[in-house]
Amino acid sequence: MRDILDAVAAGDLSPADAEVQLRGYATTDNGRFDAAREQRRGVPEAILGEGKTPAEISDLAATAVETTGRAIVTRTDEDDVTALHDRFDGEDVSVDHDHRAKTVVVHEEGYEGPTLAATVGIVTGGTSDAAVAGEAAVIAREMGATVEFVEDVGVAHLGRVLDHLDTLRESDVLIVAAGREGALPTVVAGLVDTPVIGLPVPTGYGAGGEGRAALDGMLQSCTIISVVNIGAGFVAGAQAGLVARAVDGARDA
Amino acid sequence: MRDILDAVAAGDLSPADAEVQLRGYATTDNGRFDAAREQRRGVPEAILGEGKTPAEISDLAATAVETTGRAIVTRTDEDDVTALHDRFDGEDVSVDHDHRAKTVVVHEEGYEGPTLAATVGIVTGGTSDAAVAGEAAVIAREMGATVEFVEDVGVAHLGRVLDHLDTLRESDVLIVAAGREGALPTVVAGLVDTPVIGLPVPTGYGAGGEGRAALDGMLQSCTIISVVNIGAGFVAGAQAGLVARAVDGARDA
Amino acid sequence: MRDILDAVAAGDLSPADAEVQLRGYATTDNGRFDAAREQRRGVPEAILGEGKTPAEISDLAATAVETTGRAIVTRTDEDDVTALHDRFDGEDVSVDHDHRAKTVVVHEEGYEGPTLAATVGIVTGGTSDAAVAGEAAVIAREMGATVEFVEDVGVAHLGRVLDHLDTLRESDVLIVAAGREGALPTVVAGLVDTPVIGLPVPTGYGAGGEGRAALDGMLQSCTIISVVNIGAGFVAGAQAGLVARAVDGARDA
Amino acid sequence: MRDILDAVAAGDLSPADAEVQLRGYATTDNGRFDAAREQRRGVPEAILGEGKTPAEISDLAATAVETTGRAIVTRTDEDDVTALHDRFDGEDVSVDHDHRAKTVVVHEEGYEGPTLAATVGIVTGGTSDAAVAGEAAVIAREMGATVEFVEDVGVAHLGRVLDHLDTLRESDVLIVAAGREGALPTVVAGLVDTPVIGLPVPTGYGAGGEGRAALDGMLQSCTIISVVNIGAGFVAGAQAGLVARAVDGARDA
Amino acid sequence: MRDILDAVAAGDLSPADAEVQLRGYATTDNGRFDAAREQRRGVPEAILGEGKTPAEISDLAATAVETTGRAIVTRTDEDDVTALHDRFDGEDVSVDHDHRAKTVVVHEEGYEGPTLAATVGIVTGGTSDAAVAGEAAVIAREMGATVEFVEDVGVAHLGRVLDHLDTLRESDVLIVAAGREGALPTVVAGLVDTPVIGLPVPTGYGAGGEGRAALDGMLQSCTIISVVNIGAGFVAGAQAGLVARAVDGARDA
Amino acid sequence: MRDILDAVAAGDLSPADAEVQLRGYATTDNGRFDAAREQRRGVPEAILGEGKTPAEISDLAATAVETTGRAIVTRTDEDDVTALHDRFDGEDVSVDHDHRAKTVVVHEEGYEGPTLAATVGIVTGGTSDAAVAGEAAVIAREMGATVEFVEDVGVAHLGRVLDHLDTLRESDVLIVAAGREGALPTVVAGLVDTPVIGLPVPTGYGAGGEGRAALDGMLQSCTIISVVNIGAGFVAGAQAGLVARAVDGARDA
Amino acid sequence: MRDILDAVAAGDLSPADAEVQLRGYATTDNGRFDAAREQRRGVPEAILGEGKTPAEISDLAATAVETTGRAIVTRTDEDDVTALHDRFDGEDVSVDHDHRAKTVVVHEEGYEGPTLAATVGIVTGGTSDAAVAGEAAVIAREMGATVEFVEDVGVAHLGRVLDHLDTLRESDVLIVAAGREGALPTVVAGLVDTPVIGLPVPTGYGAGGEGRAALDGMLQSCTIISVVNIGAGFVAGAQAGLVARAVDGARDA
Amino acid sequence: MRDILDAVAAGDLSPADAEVQLRGYATTDNGRFDAAREQRRGVPEAILGEGKTPAEISDLAATAVETTGRAIVTRTDEDDVTALHDRFDGEDVSVDHDHRAKTVVVHEEGYEGPTLAATVGIVTGGTSDAAVAGEAAVIAREMGATVEFVEDVGVAHLGRVLDHLDTLRESDVLIVAAGREGALPTVVAGLVDTPVIGLPVPTGYGAGGEGRAALDGMLQSCTIISVVNIGAGFVAGAQAGLVARAVDGARDA
Repeated sequence: MRDILDAVAAGDLSPADAEVQLRGYATTDNGRFDAAREQRRGVPEAILGEGKTPAEISDLAATAVETTGRAIVTRTDEDDVTALHDRFDGEDVSVDHDHRAKTVVVHEEGYEGPTLAATVGIVTGGTSDAAVAGEAAVIAREMGATVEFVEDVGVAHLGRVLDHLDTLRESDVLIVAAGREGALPTVVAGLVDTPVIGLPVPTGYGAGGEGRAALDGMLQSCTIISVVNIGAGFVAGAQAGLVARAVDGARDA
Repeated sequence: MRDILDAVAAGDLSPADAEVQLRGYATTDNGRFDAAREQRRGVPEAILGEGKTPAEISDLAATAVETTGRAIVTRTDEDDVTALHDRFDGEDVSVDHDHRAKTVVVHEEGYEGPTLAATVGIVTGGTSDAAVAGEAAVIAREMGATVEFVEDVGVAHLGRVLDHLDTLRESDVLIVAAGREGALPTVVAGLVDTPVIGLPVPTGYGAGGEGRAALDGMLQSCTIISVVNIGAGFVAGAQAGLVARAVDGARDA
Repeated sequence: MRDILDAVAAGDLSPADAEVQLRGYATTDNGRFDAAREQRRGVPEAILGEGKTPAEISDLAATAVETTGRAIVTRTDEDDVTALHDRFDGEDVSVDHDHRAKTVVVHEEGYEGPTLAATVGIVTGGTSDAAVAGEAAVIAREMGATVEFVEDVGVAHLGRVLDHLDTLRESDVLIVAAGREGALPTVVAGLVDTPVIGLPVPTGYGAGGEGRAALDGMLQSCTIISVVNIGAGFVAGAQAGLVARAVDGARDA
Repeated sequence: MRDILDAVAAGDLSPADAEVQLRGYATTDNGRFDAAREQRRGVPEAILGEGKTPAEISDLAATAVETTGRAIVTRTDEDDVTALHDRFDGEDVSVDHDHRAKTVVVHEEGYEGPTLAATVGIVTGGTSDAAVAGEAAVIAREMGATVEFVEDVGVAHLGRVLDHLDTLRESDVLIVAAGREGALPTVVAGLVDTPVIGLPVPTGYGAGGEGRAALDGMLQSCTIISVVNIGAGFVAGAQAGLVARAVDGARDA
Repeated sequence: MRDILDAVAAGDLSPADAEVQLRGYATTDNGRFDAAREQRRGVPEAILGEGKTPAEISDLAATAVETTGRAIVTRTDEDDVTALHDRFDGEDVSVDHDHRAKTVVVHEEGYEGPTLAATVGIVTGGTSDAAVAGEAAVIAREMGATVEFVEDVGVAHLGRVLDHLDTLRESDVLIVAAGREGALPTVVAGLVDTPVIGLPVPTGYGAGGEGRAALDGMLQSCTIISVVNIGAGFVAGAQAGLVARAVDGARDA
Repeated sequence: MRDILDAVAAGDLSPADAEVQLRGYATTDNGRFDAAREQRRGVPEAILGEGKTPAEISDLAATAVETTGRAIVTRTDEDDVTALHDRFDGEDVSVDHDHRAKTVVVHEEGYEGPTLAATVGIVTGGTSDAAVAGEAAVIAREMGATVEFVEDVGVAHLGRVLDHLDTLRESDVLIVAAGREGALPTVVAGLVDTPVIGLPVPTGYGAGGEGRAALDGMLQSCTIISVVNIGAGFVAGAQAGLVARAVDGARDA
Repeated sequence: MRDILDAVAAGDLSPADAEVQLRGYATTDNGRFDAAREQRRGVPEAILGEGKTPAEISDLAATAVETTGRAIVTRTDEDDVTALHDRFDGEDVSVDHDHRAKTVVVHEEGYEGPTLAATVGIVTGGTSDAAVAGEAAVIAREMGATVEFVEDVGVAHLGRVLDHLDTLRESDVLIVAAGREGALPTVVAGLVDTPVIGLPVPTGYGAGGEGRAALDGMLQSCTIISVVNIGAGFVAGAQAGLVARAVDGARDA
Repeated sequence: MRDILDAVAAGDLSPADAEVQLRGYATTDNGRFDAAREQRRGVPEAILGEGKTPAEISDLAATAVETTGRAIVTRTDEDDVTALHDRFDGEDVSVDHDHRAKTVVVHEEGYEGPTLAATVGIVTGGTSDAAVAGEAAVIAREMGATVEFVEDVGVAHLGRVLDHLDTLRESDVLIVAAGREGALPTVVAGLVDTPVIGLPVPTGYGAGGEGRAALDGMLQSCTIISVVNIGAGFVAGAQAGLVARAVDGARDA
C-alpha cells in the first residue's frame, strides 16, 4: 500500500488511479467489483432458475448476455426453457438446453469462453445422479475445462469402475457424484492418484436419506477426498474448474 | 388351545401337564422360561462385563457354568480376565480369553455345545473392527456355526475383496463389519448371493462419527443387506447364528 | 487367476474365453454383468414407479418383459396401473396389480420363476403397514419363496400375536413390519427361534415420527433381530428371499 | 381479589393479613413460599446428591431435617452415604439407604409423613432399570402412596407380564420403566385400564442409545401413556404421587 | 391358570368356557378382543380422518355406530364433514361437528356414554392451540369426564393465569397445551396440586419449531408434569380420562 | 477514501499518515489493530482459563496487566487462582477472585476502567445459573456498567419474579439466565419494556438437556428477546455492555 | 404491595382503584392487559397473514385500526393485499404495501405513531434476505426508529462492507441478516462498536440448510452478537426497537 | 485386458508377468498392493498415535522406517515422543517433533522424499487451529509441497486477511482452517482465484459446537470451496498435496 501512496505523493499516480488500485486491493463499487472478481476467479455467475418466474429468468439472462456475452441458467423447468427460447428467438445467440442437467447456456455469436488445457472427469453411479452431475459438467465446461463423463458405475458393480480406470487416471481432477450410501468416491479415490471431489446427491429415504448418509460417508471416507454440500453440482464443477485452472496455469508456464 | 383343553376334559392330559404346555405356549415362571427360551432359540445368554466389577462377573460366570455348563463374558478388561482365571483356577473347566474380541468363554469339562452344518463368514476392513467382529464370531461359534474370517479387506483396497470371493461365496451367511463410511457391506453384497448382515463399527470422528455414517450408509445401501446397531457384535453374531440354524435344519431334513 | 492364465499360455483356453471368465470373476460390460448378477443373486430388478411418468414406467416394463420375461413395478399410482394395462393389452402376458402393495407384476406367458422350498412369514401390526409389507411380499414371492401373512397383530393386542405362534414358528424367516413405536419385531423375536428381519414403517408424528422411533427401537431391541431402513419393503423382502434361498439350497443338498 | 380488598376497606381484615392472603394468591417471600408450595402440592423437595460434595449434602440434609423433619437425598455415592451416617450419628433420626435406588431418606423420630389410600405400581424390565425406578418408588412412598414393584418383566418375556396382570390392574396408577427400545409401557398399557406413566431409562448404545429410542418409542406408543424425561425417576414418582393424591382425595370424600 | 385347568379336569368347567376365560386372561379373536379392551379401558376407538377419503370415513363411522352406538372422527376436513352429514341424513343419530377441534361425534339415539364424577381442566395459550386441545376435550368428554376450558392464558400474560387459579385448582387433572417455547405447563404446575399433563402443540418455526422446543421444554420442566407427543390431543385427552376414571372409581367406593 | 488521497496529492498529508488512516479504515498490523479494536468497541479481551495450565494463565495475565493495566481470567479452577495470587504477590495490583463466577480480575494500582451511566440487570433462576450469570456480570462491570442481580426467581415461583418488578424495570438492559426449560426470559420479557438478552445455561438431562431445550425455547419465545449461545456468559455480558454504552452515549449527548 | 393495602385501610384508596393498581402490578382482564402491555413495551401487535384467509386478515386489520389506529399485517400474499385494499377502500386510512417485506401497514388518518431519536441499521447480504429484513424494518419503523438499510454486502464481497462503515457506525443498533453460512454479522460486529443483532435467514440447502448453519454460526460467533430465531424478522425488528427506545429515553433525559 | 491376454496367448508375456499386470489393474496381495498404492498416489501412510501405547507406536514407526525410510506419527502425546526418541536413539535417523502439530516425523539418513514445484498455503484464524492445521502442513510437506503459513487472520480482523493477500494468491492451493463459526474460508475464497479447501476445527461450545457450525457453514458457503471433515488435518493436507502433485505434473510437462 505504501508504494501506491508514495507514488501519489510524488505525483506519479493520480488520486483517481490510486483509488482504483487501492480499491482493487480491497474494495470497489458493486458492479465493477463483481466483474473484477469473476474475471479474476474465472468462476462464472449463474442464474438459479429455481424460485424465479420464466419472465424473471429471461430478463436476467438477457442482461447477462449483454454484459458478458453469456448466460448460464441452472435448475430450469420446461416453462423456463420455452421462455428463454422465445426471448432469444431471432437473435445472434446459441441457446443450449441440457435436458438432464436442467441447464440452459446462452452464448452470443462470437463468444469465446476460456480454454483450459486440463480435463475434469465426472463419475456417476446412476441416472438419479444425472441432474446434479450435469450441472457440475456445465460449469466446468464454461470455465474452459474438457469434461469426460464416466457414467453408471457403482459400488455394487465394481467391474464397471475397473473398466474405466484409464479414463479416471487420465483426468486432472475428478468429481464423483453419489447418493444413497455415497461410497463411490471412496472406491474411486482408492484406485487413482487424481484429486477427487465428492458430490453427494440428494437421494435415499428414511435414516440418512436425501443425501445425508452420502455426505457423512464421504466426510468419513478412509481415502483422501474433499466434498461439497448435498446437491451442490455448481460448487463441485467450479471447484474442479479452479483446480483445472491451476493445472492449466502450470502447463502454460 | 382348544385341543389341549379338550384333552384335559377327556382326562387324556393332566392339569399339570396342560399347564406346562399352555405356559410353553405363552407363559411360565421366570427361571424355567429363560431356560426354555435359550434352549428353543439357541441364542446363549452372555454376561456383559462392561459396568460390572470383576467380582460380580466372576460370580455370574460361576452361576452360568453351574447352570448351563458354559459362561460367555463380553467386553472384559484385564482385571475381569484375571478374576475369571482366579475363580476357575483348579476347576475342571476351560477358560478361553479372546484378547481382540475382549471375550472370555468358560466351558465345563465335557461340555458339548450345539453343532451346526453351516458357515458364518465374517469380513472386516481393518484392525479397528476386530473387537466388534470378534464378539460376533464368539457368539456364532458358541451357537455351533463354523466361522470363517476374511480380514483387512476394505473399499479402498478392492483387490483384497476380490481375492477372497470364494470364501465369501461359500459361506451360508456373511457378517460384514465396517466403521467410518461403512461401504464394505455394500461392496461385498454386490459380489455374492449370500445373505449379508451389516455390522457398523463405532469408529470415525466429526460429522457421522462413532459409527453413525456407517449405520446410515448401510441402511441406504443400494444392494440387499440388513443391519444391526452400531457396535452390536453380539446381535450380528446371534442373527447369523439363527440363519445358520435355519440352514442346518434344512440340511438335516 | 493364475490357473486361467496358465491355461491361456498353454493354449487350453482362448483369450476371449479367458476374458469372460476373468470378467466373470470381477468385471464385464454393463448389460451382461447385470444379467449375471441378477441370475446369481436371485434378486430381481424392480422398476420404482415413484418419480417416473406412466409412459416411462410402461416402456421400462416392456423392456423388462422382453429381456427377462417379467417386470416388477413398485410404488405405482392409478395412472401407472392404467398405462401398464393399456401397454400390455392384447399381449400374452399376465398383469397382476396388488392394490395394497401398490405393485404391478407382469409375467410373460410361460414364464417360470424360481421356486424355493422355504417360507417367508410376514407379520404386520395394522393397515398402515400394508403397503410396505406388501412390497416385501411381492419380492419374496418373485424370488420363489412361499409367503405367509400374519396381519393385524400388535403389541397392544398380545393375544393376537400368541394366536399365530404356530405360523410364526413354522416360517424359515420372518419379516415383522411396524411403525409408531416399532415394538412388534421385539415381541415376536422373543417367542420364536426363526431369524427375524425388522421392517420399520414410516408412520407416526412429532418426536420419533415417520418411522424414526420404530427404526431406533428395532436397533435397540433386547432380542435378536436385524433391520432394514424405514419403508424399505423391497430390501426386507429380498433379504428374506436370500435367507430362503440359503435354506432351500440346504434342503436340496 | 375484590373480596379481600373490600374486607380491608371495611376494616374486617388487617393489611398484614390481606398481604398474606394476596401473596398466597400469587407471591410470597422465598422461604415461606416454598414451604407453602410443598405443603400444598405434597411434592417433597429432594437434595440431588450428584454434583455436590458429601459435606454439602450433609449440611443440606441437616437443614432439611430441622425444617421439615425429613431429608430425601437422591443420586448418592458411597462417600455421600458415609457422610450422612456420620452426620446423623447419635441423633434421634432414622437413616434409610436404598442401595439400588441410590437414595437416602432421613426421618426425625416421630416424623409422620402423609398417608394416601392409593397404590402406585412400578414395573421394570430388568436390573438396569432399578436405580431410576427405585428413585420413583422412594418419592411416591414419601408422598404417602403404597408402592408395589413388579420387576424383571420384559417385552421379550411376555409370560412374566401376563403373570402379574392382577397386581398391575389393582394399582391406581402405574409407572413403567424401560430402556433400550422402551416397549414395555406400551405392552402393559394394552392390558390394563390404569393410567400408565412411561419412564425411559438411559440404557442402550449406538443409534437411539442412552434412552432416546425408549423416550421416542413411548411418545409414539399406539396405546395411551404419558411420559417423563429420560431417567427422570423423581418426576415419574412425584407425578404418580399426585395422581395417587387425587384418588385418595376422592376416596376421602 | 391352574385353577381353571383343575376345574376343567373336574368337569366343573367346559373346555369352551375355559377357553374364553384363558383367552380373557390373555388372548381372544380380533373382533371380540377389541370390544373387550375398549369396554375395560374405557378409551374409545376413534377414526383418524387424515389420510382417508370421505367415503372411507363415512363407512367406518357407520360401522362404528352400528357396533358401539357411537363414532368419533378426528382430523376431518370440510368434505369429510359433508360426507358424514350426508351419510347419517335421516337416521336417528346426532352428528356433532366441533369446528375448532376438527372432530365429528355421532351418537345413536338413546346412546348413553359413560359418566365420571371428575373434571378435566384444559388450559391453552392461544388460538393456535385450539385444534389440538379441542381434540383432547372431545375424547375426555366421550370418556365421561366434565371438561373445563381455560383459554388464552400465556406465560407472557401471567395475569391471565393467576385469574383462573380457582378453576385450575378445582380440576381433578389438567391438560396444558402449549406451542412455541411450551412454558405454560411449567407455570401452571407451579401453582396447583393437580396432576398436569403437558400437551405440546406443533407451532413455531426455525430452531425448535413444529413443537420440538415445546416438547423438550416440558420434558425439562423444573416442576412435576408428564407429557405426550407433539400434537397428541387424543392421547392427552384419553390419559386425562383414565385419571378421571381412577378418581371417579375412588369416589364411587 | 478519495479525500485522503487528494490530501496526499496536495501534500497536505504525508504518505505515512495516510497509510495509518487508510489502515484504520480497514487494515493494520496485528498488535496495533487489536488495541484499536478493543478501545473502539469497549469489549475487553479475556483470558479463557479452561484448557490452559496455571503457568500459562499467569503469564498471559501478567502480559495483559502490563499492556492494558488489567487482566480478566474466566473459567478458573483453584490451581489457577493460586497461581495468579502467587504471580502478583507483592505487586501493586488488586486481585479479585469471584468464587461463583470462577473469574479473576486483576487491576493495576491506579487503573481506571470505563464508567457508564447505565445499569445491566441480571436475573437467574437458581444456584446452577450462578457461574454463567456471574461471568456475564464481571464483563458488564469491567465495561463500566452498574450491575444489579435478581436471583433465585423462577417460572415455578412466579411470586419471586413479581416481587422484583421494579428492579427489572429500572435496568437499561436485562440478561436473564435460565437452564432446563428456559422459560424465565419469556416470563420476564412479558413484564418489562427493557431489552432482554436470554442466556441459556447448560443444565438438564435427557431430551433437550445441557441447555438445548433452554436455547430452543428462548429462540421460540412468544415475547421479544434475543439470545446468545448456551453458557455464553461472556457474550451476554458484553452484548449488554454494548447496549449500556449506547445508552450511556445518549445520556452524555 | 403493603403501601397500597395500607392506603385502602386508611380509606385513601378505593378498593376498585386498589384492584386496578394491584392488577397493574400483576394481573388484569385480557383486553385491558394487552393494551397496557403494548403501551408499556412499545412493541406493536402484528397480524400474521400466513395461515389466515384474506377475509380473516381484513377483519382483524379493521378491528386493529378501530382499536389502535393502526394495523400491521405480515407475511401477506397477493390475495391478502387485494382484500385489504378492498376493505379500506373509501376510508380515511393509508394502506402501505411493502412488496419485498410482504407487509401491509394501515394508518388511520391523523395516526401519530411513536418517534424515537435513534437509528436502527439493517444490513443484508443479498436479495434472498429482503423479505425477512424488510419485516424487521417495518416493525422498527412502527416503533418509531429511523431505519437505515445497507444492502447487498456479503462476506464474499468485503469491499462492500468496508464502503458502508460510516453508516454502520452511526447506527445505534444494527440488525445483520444473513442466510447460507451466516458470517456477515460476525464480519460487521468486528468493525463497529454498535450492538449487533444477528438475524438468520432460512436459505441454503443440504447440510445446515434452511438457515440452520446461519443460526449456529451466529451463536458460535467469535465476536459479540446476540441472535434471534431463523426468519424471525419481527423479533429482530422489535428487539432493535427496544434498544432504540432505551437510547431515545436516555437522549430525552 | 484383452491386450494382455492376447500377449499371453502369443507367448509374448509370461503368465506370472500377466498376473502382475492384471493384479496391478485391479488386485494384488496386501503388502505389495499397499506399496504400489502409496507410490502411485503419493499419499504417505501415517501412524495415528491416538489410542496406541508408546510401545506400539515405536514398533510401528520402526517398521515404517525400515520399509519406506520414513515414519509419520500423528496425534502424539509426551510419552509417545519420549518413546520414539528412545527407540531411534543412536540410529542414523532424524526425529522431528512438531510440538504444535503433535506430529513426529522420522527420516532415515539419506532419505529423499518427493519434491513438488507447487505451494500449499495454510491459513488459520488463531492458536486453537494450530494442531489441526499443523498436521495438514506436515502431510503436505512430506508429499513434497512447499508450505506457506498465514496465521492468526480471522473474520473479526479483516485487516489481517487483506495484509496477506499476496501470499494467499501466490499459493497453488489453499487450506483454510477455522473453528467456531467457520467463516474464514468463505472470506478468503472471495479474494483469491486459488482452489480453497475448508478445514473445520473442533472448537466451540453449545449449539453448533465442536466444529459442527464450522463444517455446516463451509458446506453452505456462498463462494467456491470444498471441505473435509471436522479436525481432518491429515485429509486436508493430503488433498492439497494431490492438487499440488497435479500442478507439479503440469509444470514438468
